[in-house]
Amino acid sequence: MSAPVLALDVGGTKLAAALVGPQGGVHRRTEVPTPRGDEAQVWSAVVDLLDQVRRGAEIRGVGVGSGGPMEWPSGVVSPLNIAEWRDFPLRDALAQRFRGLPVRVHNDAVCVAIGEHWRGAGRGTADLLGMVVSTGVGGGLVLGGRVVNGATGNAGHIGHVVVEPDGPECVCGGQGCLEAVARGPAIAAWAVARGWREPGATARQLAEDARGGDPVAVQAFAHAGNALGVAIASAVQLCDVETVVVGGGVSLAGPLLFDPLDSAYRRHAGLKFARETRVTLAALGQDAGLVGAAALLLAEDHYWSG
Amino acid sequence: MSAPVLALDVGGTKLAAALVGPQGGVHRRTEVPTPRGDEAQVWSAVVDLLDQVRRGAEIRGVGVGSGGPMEWPSGVVSPLNIAEWRDFPLRDALAQRFRGLPVRVHNDAVCVAIGEHWRGAGRGTADLLGMVVSTGVGGGLVLGGRVVNGATGNAGHIGHVVVEPDGPECVCGGQGCLEAVARGPAIAAWAVARGWREPGATARQLAEDARGGDPVAVQAFAHAGNALGVAIASAVQLCDVETVVVGGGVSLAGPLLFDPLDSAYRRHAGLKFARETRVTLAALGQDAGLVGAAALLLAEDHYWSG
Repeated sequence: MSAPVLALDVGGTKLAAALVGPQGGVHRRTEVPTPRGDEAQVWSAVVDLLDQVRRGAEIRGVGVGSGGPMEWPSGVVSPLNIAEWRDFPLRDALAQRFRGLPVRVHNDAVCVAIGEHWRGAGRGTADLLGMVVSTGVGGGLVLGGRVVNGATGNAGHIGHVVVEPDGPECVCGGQGCLEAVARGPAIAAWAVARGWREPGATARQLAEDARGGDPVAVQAFAHAGNALGVAIASAVQLCDVETVVVGGGVSLAGPLLFDPLDSAYRRHAGLKFARETRVTLAALGQDAGLVGAAALLLAEDHYWSG
Repeated sequence: MSAPVLALDVGGTKLAAALVGPQGGVHRRTEVPTPRGDEAQVWSAVVDLLDQVRRGAEIRGVGVGSGGPMEWPSGVVSPLNIAEWRDFPLRDALAQRFRGLPVRVHNDAVCVAIGEHWRGAGRGTADLLGMVVSTGVGGGLVLGGRVVNGATGNAGHIGHVVVEPDGPECVCGGQGCLEAVARGPAIAAWAVARGWREPGATARQLAEDARGGDPVAVQAFAHAGNALGVAIASAVQLCDVETVVVGGGVSLAGPLLFDPLDSAYRRHAGLKFARETRVTLAALGQDAGLVGAAALLLAEDHYWSG
């Protein structure tokens, strides 16, 4: 069967969709800002976007990566950054819209990990941790060539591995989580608290200033990179993955982030097998989530057991 | 087929063996101190022990949990605490001794996790982290009802999740690992450094003194329990396990350890699914490793894919 999958990526800032071919090729990629309003308005924007991308094409099904939390595999979603959707039955609504076609919904960061495993920087490895460092810090695990769902479909939350037990409070309600230290806004806030620019300045501006040599900006990325190295060492020693793929906007800071990350990783990952693990940049960029969402329906169910 | 498995547990202090029936019943359990000497002397003790337990019984194969590190699934072992065995081909040596029968070897802590999942405190759950807190801190992961091996057979090393990034050096070469803080000898050393008894006093004595109200002894277990709670929170949020089973000699300290563990877990595990995870004492005691080693050959290969 050579028909593509209609893939959808639901985020707090934007909605993206594309047709993804059986080999992972991305066609008709389109994105729109996520509307504000009520439940129906967001749903309506999703429907318009999918119609625009599909344009009558034959498809084999619909694959979706959505911001969490969600109930899995039922696909009832309550994306943290889309207040309009609380317990929104996304999978059922899509199944009704696309009668007779399979619809599968997973966590957006899990889809990024799947995309990188299937067609990106983790291709050919059986055991992988995929990470997205952006407004939040998310992730997904592929072990033994199959996606790990966990007891409730929530496996892969590398952002909530503890890196500073006495550190900042996290939005999850915990303390000292990786996300509380290394998400873009937290990195920028760390620098602002030390005299860099005014509150509201972004991690993107911080990266520019760090490249220009601003010492506080450089230290801020070093602080975040160190936290990432600690969390990755913990995850690799626990899960024995061969490859860690790091993507998301913050990862574009490059060596500013990855040099301190590598140094912390080497300091904390003492076990022999962990010293041979490869930590690398994501390869698919903005397409990873869509490719992974499509792979939920392709790839012989390696990525779906719901 | 109703024949039992000949199960072997290879540790630095003792060698244990038993016949384990198809339902997990343990018969003829026997243990001997691990001899010191050379490679052949340790092997000879293993052979004598297995002959003594088997006594001509029909068996369906040999299942082994051994101290690591090891090459998996080939079962070439170099147990940290058995200096006599370095790259010892345990699986091949047993296969030669028990011609025509299957022989499977896995990490001893992985076998404990499997035992507790198959017939112990984790029975009936699909996703479990099993831990052994003893001279070291080991563990194993069962996800989706199957044991996780990882890229090199080393998944489950919860002892090397980082709990104090600036903390003590670990035998693995890392820094601030759970094992460096919460293994029995480290707990005792922490107390000795604060004026409790002379160097060489054990964690067992420390537990007695803590039960008697010695404040340093109580604090020492609180310190270790806190570290365990941090590591378990990280592992649960990453792997979304339903149940965490904690066994090993140090776990016998009971509430001295588990109260601070629970408190730290609640402080750090903020995600909703993690707050519903059950952390519980192991149920099989000293038999867990033997039952798990036998399950490598039973249980429809849920625990073996080597």
